[in-house]
Amino acid sequence: MTGQRVLERFRETMVGPTRFMNVLCCFELGIIDALRRHPRMTAGQLGDAVGAAPDAVEQLLHLLVKESFVSYDADSGAYALDGLATVADEDLQRVLAIMNMIKTVVLRQSFYLADSVRTGRTVGLKNLYGHDGNLYEALAEHKDLRESWGTMMDTITAHIDPWFFENIDIPAGSKVLDLAGNTGLGAILTYRLKASPGLRVATFDLPEKEAECLRNFKEHGVEEHCSFIGGDVFEKVPGGFDVVLIKHFVDMFDKKEVFNMLVNANRALEAGGQVNILGPVYPEDVKDFPAVDFFPTYFLGCTMGQGGPQKLSTYRDWLTECGFTVTRAIAQDPAGMPADALVAHGILCATKTAPA
Amino acid sequence: MTGQRVLERFRETMVGPTRFMNVLCCFELGIIDALRRHPRMTAGQLGDAVGAAPDAVEQLLHLLVKESFVSYDADSGAYALDGLATVADEDLQRVLAIMNMIKTVVLRQSFYLADSVRTGRTVGLKNLYGHDGNLYEALAEHKDLRESWGTMMDTITAHIDPWFFENIDIPAGSKVLDLAGNTGLGAILTYRLKASPGLRVATFDLPEKEAECLRNFKEHGVEEHCSFIGGDVFEKVPGGFDVVLIKHFVDMFDKKEVFNMLVNANRALEAGGQVNILGPVYPEDVKDFPAVDFFPTYFLGCTMGQGGPQKLSTYRDWLTECGFTVTRAIAQDPAGMPADALVAHGILCATKTAPA
Repeated sequence: MTGQRVLERFRETMVGPTRFMNVLCCFELGIIDALRRHPRMTAGQLGDAVGAAPDAVEQLLHLLVKESFVSYDADSGAYALDGLATVADEDLQRVLAIMNMIKTVVLRQSFYLADSVRTGRTVGLKNLYGHDGNLYEALAEHKDLRESWGTMMDTITAHIDPWFFENIDIPAGSKVLDLAGNTGLGAILTYRLKASPGLRVATFDLPEKEAECLRNFKEHGVEEHCSFIGGDVFEKVPGGFDVVLIKHFVDMFDKKEVFNMLVNANRALEAGGQVNILGPVYPEDVKDFPAVDFFPTYFLGCTMGQGGPQKLSTYRDWLTECGFTVTRAIAQDPAGMPADALVAHGILCATKTAPA
Repeated sequence: MTGQRVLERFRETMVGPTRFMNVLCCFELGIIDALRRHPRMTAGQLGDAVGAAPDAVEQLLHLLVKESFVSYDADSGAYALDGLATVADEDLQRVLAIMNMIKTVVLRQSFYLADSVRTGRTVGLKNLYGHDGNLYEALAEHKDLRESWGTMMDTITAHIDPWFFENIDIPAGSKVLDLAGNTGLGAILTYRLKASPGLRVATFDLPEKEAECLRNFKEHGVEEHCSFIGGDVFEKVPGGFDVVLIKHFVDMFDKKEVFNMLVNANRALEAGGQVNILGPVYPEDVKDFPAVDFFPTYFLGCTMGQGGPQKLSTYRDWLTECGFTVTRAIAQDPAGMPADALVAHGILCATKTAPA
């Protein structure tokens, strides 16, 4: 790679924030919806339709023409959907949910990335929201964060959690512990998708989640099979389980905390018991997929002040060091994912073969 | 273009903000400088050197490895400069000045792009700085904006203004008006680079610029040849000039204001007088150069709440409509510019051939 090529990549990097907001803004203003309803509108007509100056509409649409998202006819001065007309609405809604999350949760907060890395705290949440703590705590207090993050996360878990349960084995009649199981959704899914005579699932999380969790169990009619145990996954976890699930959690922490968690999972399991982990993973060669373009800043600067996904091989090593033998390690194949995907999830299944 | 290709472009768009901050943060934290001093450092050594968690350093460097800016040796766990070692320091400093400007002036402010477009005001400056007005006014009050923007602008004008004066003709003994000439730099350059017996240059700008402008003339020893005239370029401009210069100004306004300005320039000129315009321009085909990836958001969301460059052909048409005959219209050739360049400047020279 020559200096020239590096400078080209810097240019791509430099236009990242403006390109992002320019594209999103055309949706936010309603320009794209207007073009969907009435093809071949001029900047003047679009400006009238969305309440913006025609000059500004023209400026914003230059990029969409450059991207071939929208076409422009110089003779008539009219715009029409081009590439955007070829995208299925379901795909577009998924993309817009993620873009809205990035705008709300990431864009301004990432300004403070270096400070967040130095302090291990999400300085952006402190400076912008007055919030001392991580994003997941801030979600409870701030509707804009909660709605933008929740909408995005719902679209991800709706696809990913069923894939996880298809790929793990929960022996009939097991005692299952859903580590950091929040308000019980994982336990409910486990019972629904992996039901067997005698199956019992316990959600383990901070005591303040108990009331909502038990309410959820009742609402879903699983209260006879599911229970809640209050505690801290980094402190002490109860024992006597056949299966431990860790979903959407290991990627939030640095190695030391993940080890702490895996050791506690090991102690919670009977000999021969299994741990099943679900979370985003980096490809073995980081050049193969753009996950590393997104997650470090997202976790370090915007959500936790630490953490971030690892490669499947790294998680495998960590499990081995914590007394497990990995029996399955799979990652989503980018070739089978939508072309806009930023995240490939992985599943690791491992058997306890030594005490931690 | 198929939906697939559009979704790929959305993915590129979505990683823009995080990619930008991840790369910049590695410089801000001193990781790159540390690697320049000591090649082959592990994440642990780098973390110690810059005061950050090794896990965080590892997360941040994934992207730089993906970009081939930095190399990683899996056996030793050591990082070293890769592509970054091939970039001249002067090039890197220019890039970092622009990246710092984008972080400070653009990143957070662009969150409010849609609101800025709807209102024609820089809502980000209001919400983040409590500033009612445009960026150029805010520079006076806010050191972070002033320093980041000024450093970037200085590197641009140092190259561009001499190129402008090389390409324009100022007849001997002319009376020159530098429209929106700020505090006199354009007048001083005109006298220095285009001196002729009897040449007189007047800086025209808001009256509050007068004292500093006259101080500058004195400091540079041009006070006998240069003068200041207070006024508003959108209201009334004095007459009797042979040459009008408009540098770094037309790109800040919408068509209506540019017309107003050109009509006033026309009235300021004697018959046969010349106007010379310098400013960023878009390529005739917006797909040819990434200027439209940057400027619409920069002008609409972060600096003016309006404006943005036009194509050379658009400025040519506008000049013609305002009573000028264009005699020269040139733009910088991207092939001759550094590969990181976001802006190509244009020069338009035109003769007054009709009253406006």
